[in-house]
Amino acid sequence: MARDLRPFFEPRSVAVIGASEKPGTVGRAIMTNLLERYRGKVYPVNIKYDKVFGLKCYRSILEIPDEIDLAVIAVPADVVPKVAEECGRKGVKALLVISAGFKEIGGVGVERERKLLEVVRRYGMSMIGPNCLGIYDPYSGLDTIFNPSDRQGKPGPGSVAFISQSGALGAALLDWFTEQGIGLSKFVSYGNAADVDESDLIEYLVEDERTKVISAYIEGVKDGRKFMRAVAKAVASGKPVVVLKAGRTERGVKAAASHTGSLAGSYSVFRGALAQSGAVVVNDLLELLIAVRALETGWKVPGPRVAIVTNGGGAGVLATDAIETLGLKMAELSNDTIEELRKALPPAASPYNPVDVLGDAPADRYEKAIEIVSRDPNVDMIMVIALMQAPAIDPSALLNVLKRAKESTLKPIVFVAPGGGYAYKHLLEVQRLGIPSFRDPIEAAKALSYLYTFSNAIDRVKKYLQILT
Amino acid sequence: MARDLRPFFEPRSVAVIGASEKPGTVGRAIMTNLLERYRGKVYPVNIKYDKVFGLKCYRSILEIPDEIDLAVIAVPADVVPKVAEECGRKGVKALLVISAGFKEIGGVGVERERKLLEVVRRYGMSMIGPNCLGIYDPYSGLDTIFNPSDRQGKPGPGSVAFISQSGALGAALLDWFTEQGIGLSKFVSYGNAADVDESDLIEYLVEDERTKVISAYIEGVKDGRKFMRAVAKAVASGKPVVVLKAGRTERGVKAAASHTGSLAGSYSVFRGALAQSGAVVVNDLLELLIAVRALETGWKVPGPRVAIVTNGGGAGVLATDAIETLGLKMAELSNDTIEELRKALPPAASPYNPVDVLGDAPADRYEKAIEIVSRDPNVDMIMVIALMQAPAIDPSALLNVLKRAKESTLKPIVFVAPGGGYAYKHLLEVQRLGIPSFRDPIEAAKALSYLYTFSNAIDRVKKYLQILT
Repeated sequence: MARDLRPFFEPRSVAVIGASEKPGTVGRAIMTNLLERYRGKVYPVNIKYDKVFGLKCYRSILEIPDEIDLAVIAVPADVVPKVAEECGRKGVKALLVISAGFKEIGGVGVERERKLLEVVRRYGMSMIGPNCLGIYDPYSGLDTIFNPSDRQGKPGPGSVAFISQSGALGAALLDWFTEQGIGLSKFVSYGNAADVDESDLIEYLVEDERTKVISAYIEGVKDGRKFMRAVAKAVASGKPVVVLKAGRTERGVKAAASHTGSLAGSYSVFRGALAQSGAVVVNDLLELLIAVRALETGWKVPGPRVAIVTNGGGAGVLATDAIETLGLKMAELSNDTIEELRKALPPAASPYNPVDVLGDAPADRYEKAIEIVSRDPNVDMIMVIALMQAPAIDPSALLNVLKRAKESTLKPIVFVAPGGGYAYKHLLEVQRLGIPSFRDPIEAAKALSYLYTFSNAIDRVKKYLQILT
Repeated sequence: MARDLRPFFEPRSVAVIGASEKPGTVGRAIMTNLLERYRGKVYPVNIKYDKVFGLKCYRSILEIPDEIDLAVIAVPADVVPKVAEECGRKGVKALLVISAGFKEIGGVGVERERKLLEVVRRYGMSMIGPNCLGIYDPYSGLDTIFNPSDRQGKPGPGSVAFISQSGALGAALLDWFTEQGIGLSKFVSYGNAADVDESDLIEYLVEDERTKVISAYIEGVKDGRKFMRAVAKAVASGKPVVVLKAGRTERGVKAAASHTGSLAGSYSVFRGALAQSGAVVVNDLLELLIAVRALETGWKVPGPRVAIVTNGGGAGVLATDAIETLGLKMAELSNDTIEELRKALPPAASPYNPVDVLGDAPADRYEKAIEIVSRDPNVDMIMVIALMQAPAIDPSALLNVLKRAKESTLKPIVFVAPGGGYAYKHLLEVQRLGIPSFRDPIEAAKALSYLYTFSNAIDRVKKYLQILT
C-alpha cells in the first residue's frame, strides 16, 4: 500500500506559514500562486502581520479556527522545528517544508533535520522536504513554486508526473515541459526527502489516476530496494518510469555528494537494477524530454521493427543508422509490401526499407507508402521523414496525410523534419496532432526505442515482481 | 596542389543551360538566384526562348559572344552529354551539372555518366555533379540551390564550408545553419562526384582563405587514401574537418548503397582512419551543428580540463557526468583557486569543481567565480551554467559578465541555460556574443570535446602527414 499523500496535492485547506506581501519573498510568491488558482481554503500565518492580501493573518497555526490538511512552511530554518510542533498539535496531516538550512548544509543542519523529523514522526504527520521548491498540481492549482511567473513556465493539466531531487533543475525542466506542450499530472521537488522519499512518491503516483507516465530526476536514492520495487510496480501496472540519474561517473558522484549529500554507489549496478525493474533510463535532459513525449502517447509496441518512409535518401540512411545503433531493428518488409510499394511508387523510388518516396513526392505519395507499410505484419513502428525544403511538399496536405495515418493505424508513428524555421513550424503542427515530432532522426529513433523498452518490459517485470514479493 | 575550382565559386561569367521563366522549373529558380545577388555576367541558354527575364537567350552556348567560366546545366539527362560537348568546344572551364538521371538510376544512367565524363576529360574541363543541388557561395552570390526561398534559408557570409553528398539533406542542414546564425564560406552539394569529388573539394577549401572550418555529410568516399590525406592536410593547416558519415551500421550501409550507390566498407575502419587524420567525427545532425558552432570560434585548447561555474548543483552534476563521459576531464582546481573562491563566495557555496555559486547568485558572484577559475593554470576551458528561472539572476547583468569574461580570457567559454522560452531567449543573446550556448549540459560538453579533439590532433597530424608524403 502506498502512503496516502493526497493531502499534499488536494488539501481542502492550506496554511502558509511565512505568508507575506513583501516583494521578493517566498511567502509572497506562494500566497500569490494559491490565491490565483487554488480553490481550497488558504490561511496565511505570520507573526508580523494582521492581514496578507486582504486575508486575516494568524500569529500561529494553532489560532486558525478550521482543520488544516496541509501546512506549507517557508520560515527561517531554525524556527521550523517549533512551527512543525505547532502543526502537529493542530492535527495537520501534511507538511511541505520549503525552507533550506538542514542536512544539505551539514553540521547544525543535520541535527535540525533530525529534530524536525522526530516531530513529524511523533505526531504521525507526513513531510515533503525540507529544502525544496515543493509541489505544482495543475489540476488542484496547488502551487508552491516561487520563481517569478515571467521566467517560470508551468504546464497545463496532463498525464505526466515529474519528481525532482533538485529544485532548480526540476524548475528548469518544468519550464521546458511547458514550452514543449507536455501535459502534467503532478510536479514534486522533494529536496532532502527526510520523510517522504522518491519511492513513496512513485508508489503514490502508481495509484494516481491522472498519472500515466512517471519521470524523475534523481541524484541518489534513500533505499535502493524500495526504489526498484516502486519502479517495478509502476511498470507492471502499465505506467512507464523515466529516470535521469545524475552522478553516473566517479566525478559526477563526487559532485552529487557535495550537492545533496547523496551517496551513490556504482552507476552500472544501479543502472542494471533500473533496467531490471523496467525503467526507461535516460542520460541527459534532452533525452528525458524525448522519452516523456514518446511515452505520453500511451503507445505500446509488440516489437522493435521500424519502417521508414522518407523523401530524402540521406536522411533515411541516417535514420537507419540511428535505429540499428539504439537496439531497434529495421523492419524486413514482406514481399507483398515490396510489390505493392513498387506498383504505387515511381520507378526511381525505393520500395525497400527505408522506403524512399523521392524528393519530388507530393503528400499523396507519402500517404500510399505509409498505408502500405503500416499494414505489413513485419512492421511495429513507423518513422516518417520529410525534408520540407523541397518544393514538392504541400505542408497542409502532408499534415492531413499524417492525421489520417494516425487515425487509421494503431502502430506508433513519429515524424522528422530537419532544418530551420519553415520546417520547424510545420513540425510543430504535426506535433500537435499527437505525433511525436523531431528535427533529427536520432531523436525520433530514441523516442521509438523508449517506447519499445517500456513495452517490452511490462510482462517481464510482472513476473519479476512476483518473485520479489 | 589542389585542383583549381575557383571558376565554380567566382566565375566572371555564367551560362545557365536550361534557363527559363516557367514557374516551378529549376532553370527559373537558378536564373532568379543569380540575377538577384550574383555580380558576374549571366547568359541564359535555352533553345525554346528568345529572352529570359529580359536577357537575350541563346539557342546554344556556342552562340554566346563572350568567354564563359562556368556552365550550369539543368536540362534533361539525355541531352547533357551533347550540351557538355558544346561547352567543351566553347572553352568553358567548369561544368556544374544539376540534372539527375545518371549513375544513381543504374543501367542507362551509368553509361550516360561515363559518356559525360569522357567529354569533360577530353576538353580538360572540371565538373561538379551530376545529380546535385550545386553551389551556394554567399560571398560571390553564386547560387544554384533551387528550393523555394520561403522554405530554404541561406546563411550569410562566414567561415564555415559545408559539402554534402546528399542534396536534400545538405539543403536541410544549410537551412538549419541559417537559423543558428552560422556564417558560411561555401556550400557544395556534389552529387555523384563523377569528376570533382569530396577530396578535391576539401583540398580546395584548405587553400580557400575564407574557409576556417570544413564540414561534410558523406555516404561513401571515392578514394579512401585521398580523402584521409585531404582531411589531414586541412587539420595540419589549422582547419578542423567535421565529418558526418552515414552508413555506419550494416543496414545503414545497405541503405546508402541503394541511395547513392556508395560502397562503404567497415565504418570502424573508416572511423579509425578519420580519427588518425584528425577529423572531428560526429554521429548525427545535431552533433554536426554543435561541432560547427564550437569550431567556428577558432578556439584552440591546450588540454581537456574543464571548470564549471553553476547556480544549480544538479546541473553541475549532470555537466560533470557529461564531461567525464566524453573523455574530457574535470579540472582539479589549485589550492590557491579554492582558497580564493572560498573567500569570494558565501559559506554554503562550493569552491570545488563544479563551482556552485548557489541559486541566489547575482551576476557579480558569477563574475568573481569565472574570473578566479579562468586564472587557474589547471583550467583549459570553462562551462558556465545558469538556471535562469531563479529570481536572483538579472539576465542583462549576466550578459555583461559573460561579455567581459570572453574579452578578458583566452580560454574557451561555453554557456548553458536549460528550460523554456525565457531561458532560451537569453541564451540566444549570449550566443550572439560569440559564446557557444546550449540548453543541455551534454551539448556544451560535446562542443568542448570537439574543440579539444581538433586542438589535440593538429601537431600529431602534422607528423603523420610527413610520414604519408
